[in-house]
Amino acid sequence: MEAAGSLGPGEPQPPSTAEGAAPMKRSGGETASEAKSVGFVLVHAGAGYHSESKAKEYKQVCKKACQKAIEKLQAGVLAVDVVTAALIELEDSPFTNAGMGSNLNLSGDIECDASTMDGKSLNFGAVGALRGVKNPILVANKLLSEAQKGKLSAGRIPPCFLVGEGAYKWAVDHGIVPYPPDMMATKFSLSAFRKNRRKLELAEKVETEMIQTKKRREVSENTNDTASLDTVGAVVVDHEGNVAAAVSSGGLAMKHPGRVGQAAVYGCGCWAENTSGPNVYSTAVSTSGCGEHLVRTMLARECSVALQAEDAHQALLETMQKKFIRSPFLAHEDSVLGGVIVLRCCKCSLESESSINTQPLLVEFLWSHTTESMCVGYMSTQDGKAKTHISRLPPGAVAGQSLAIEGGVCRLRSPMT
Amino acid sequence: MEAAGSLGPGEPQPPSTAEGAAPMKRSGGETASEAKSVGFVLVHAGAGYHSESKAKEYKQVCKKACQKAIEKLQAGVLAVDVVTAALIELEDSPFTNAGMGSNLNLSGDIECDASTMDGKSLNFGAVGALRGVKNPILVANKLLSEAQKGKLSAGRIPPCFLVGEGAYKWAVDHGIVPYPPDMMATKFSLSAFRKNRRKLELAEKVETEMIQTKKRREVSENTNDTASLDTVGAVVVDHEGNVAAAVSSGGLAMKHPGRVGQAAVYGCGCWAENTSGPNVYSTAVSTSGCGEHLVRTMLARECSVALQAEDAHQALLETMQKKFIRSPFLAHEDSVLGGVIVLRCCKCSLESESSINTQPLLVEFLWSHTTESMCVGYMSTQDGKAKTHISRLPPGAVAGQSLAIEGGVCRLRSPMT
Repeated sequence: MEAAGSLGPGEPQPPSTAEGAAPMKRSGGETASEAKSVGFVLVHAGAGYHSESKAKEYKQVCKKACQKAIEKLQAGVLAVDVVTAALIELEDSPFTNAGMGSNLNLSGDIECDASTMDGKSLNFGAVGALRGVKNPILVANKLLSEAQKGKLSAGRIPPCFLVGEGAYKWAVDHGIVPYPPDMMATKFSLSAFRKNRRKLELAEKVETEMIQTKKRREVSENTNDTASLDTVGAVVVDHEGNVAAAVSSGGLAMKHPGRVGQAAVYGCGCWAENTSGPNVYSTAVSTSGCGEHLVRTMLARECSVALQAEDAHQALLETMQKKFIRSPFLAHEDSVLGGVIVLRCCKCSLESESSINTQPLLVEFLWSHTTESMCVGYMSTQDGKAKTHISRLPPGAVAGQSLAIEGGVCRLRSPMT
Repeated sequence: MEAAGSLGPGEPQPPSTAEGAAPMKRSGGETASEAKSVGFVLVHAGAGYHSESKAKEYKQVCKKACQKAIEKLQAGVLAVDVVTAALIELEDSPFTNAGMGSNLNLSGDIECDASTMDGKSLNFGAVGALRGVKNPILVANKLLSEAQKGKLSAGRIPPCFLVGEGAYKWAVDHGIVPYPPDMMATKFSLSAFRKNRRKLELAEKVETEMIQTKKRREVSENTNDTASLDTVGAVVVDHEGNVAAAVSSGGLAMKHPGRVGQAAVYGCGCWAENTSGPNVYSTAVSTSGCGEHLVRTMLARECSVALQAEDAHQALLETMQKKFIRSPFLAHEDSVLGGVIVLRCCKCSLESESSINTQPLLVEFLWSHTTESMCVGYMSTQDGKAKTHISRLPPGAVAGQSLAIEGGVCRLRSPMT
């Protein structure tokens, strides 16, 4: 196993520690902004395989999502709603495996998972196997905000996790506009479905012939290369220092109807926790990849816990190695596929700032993946435009067994200073 | 907040540490058994409110579940299948809120959650919002065992979590007999539904009248006393020292259709992990209570992690206090309702045993709850009959803010010795 960092010129560098200012590279040129509020966003368009031919589209959608988030942050919108705004852009792209253009399941239907967590209230909202809604993240966000209002009539506890038909009805009852399920498939997702179905029929034919030799489960593994893993997600910090995270996914191609992946599971798809008690840092995490692997390793929460260590880069590297690739929960898997985006922040006095109110917010952000590639974008309110990047495993590295890790640092100056 | 232990004569005592033999009380009389294999089971019929008038029925179903588990353990069946056998007995009882006689949701339907985890393979299977299957735990067990066979055709990763209609179809395709949904309601669950519906209509009328005063969410809280929280669960250790856990629930009464509670969520409803690496103990946990509280605190996994400490009783007490009642994830809840059953075991040399193979298996088992009461049963292969008990908060203790904790110790001697 190797840890690869793309260290070419122009690429972001891994940060060392929050205290060591010297080796850090700041995001953007810190051009003075007229914005009322500050903030930072990091998005991903999935850990999977991003072909060079479609690189431009992937980057473009990440850029749009970042810009939307920054507009909201500048307007003073809080992290939990900013992260939803970013996700809507990502879901609406036909290139990502979320919302529009999601992978089709075995029955040729689109069923989506999404969840979001607010680091301030620690509230969580999630939907699983949801049909007929263009933006599943909107329903997750609505579940979260409704739960924040307190109990329902007759003292009933509001739900935080709804699935299937019930989730759809709840969404419509709460003002979310239904969308014809058939219109969510795109030319690309339909073509992938047809290819996958042919492949499946062929594989099952071969396997039926081989069943007498008891080799059924060993044949044709890792041939599912038409499967898109391009779940989307985002992590945000707002001007108050609140963090939030969100994730949305169409799930594995040719999944069984009703299958729910990590994007809907607490602790697995996303995590956000503001600083409190012994936790020095506010942390936010969003994951992507093979849902079953990300569920069984609870990767989002594991990353969040690890990010309280002094060195964020080292902490994430070790988590990806020990708690994901070599996780005892995946001991029998020959290939462990996934990726994460993380951010952590604190009010850190680097130089002469003395008052807590005038201290800049130090944001460290990283991404890491064991898949061939991962497409990310990031932007601060001080940046003129978003940076986008397709991170790839180094040549020769084996997907599912190696990882790439990269990141950067951004210092958000309060406009009051 | 207070920690109460019912310490009357005949009640089980809290264990001190695994090493200290003196204060331990053994489960059963260790009457010599002709059984081939050893093992231990602890079940619960929910943390909630168990009326004195129905105490006999609750105890009876726990007893039956223990006896079924012990029969299987004696026959050499492994923990993951034993725990399912125990759950089937618990689900089949019309008195528990699982399988037959589950709480009805807002639409008057029964939708069940269930999950199981195998400490040996660390595999997990779960179903959520499942209709039309009498024993949801059978589907969770089947998902787990199917996943253990490896990948599906064309390299597809098998699901570990299925919900709704898709879960139902998968179950039927995998040989599980469908059951008419209407026949799963009992006289008791239908009567509770009618009472709850009247209460809800009344509450909503009152709230509509009060809406101008913005008091909507504050009225009639905690009036949902017809809600049954009697989720069921079990933890088991088998003759090989493997642990397993399972949980099954009809969910909160009058829940929204599609709502999924902790019983289907990884890390929240149950947890099982055999000893490995730095973990000295094998641990198994099953939870019960308010699903949203148990999800957001990930109580099953938190208990499992804590149980690696030297003193199991102290570890569970602190977890229930710090990670549940006073959890920062539930900071805005005035009442935190739930309960757990846990076991941990190790091959501990207490006396003169020298060979690891002849060392007895030391099993420590505990239950704790913040609800009015919790009904448990336990039995070892050395016992002539199961012990059952309704644990209650001490007089004056406030449910949702106080807790009770009790337990015992059992030493399983290998029949080879």
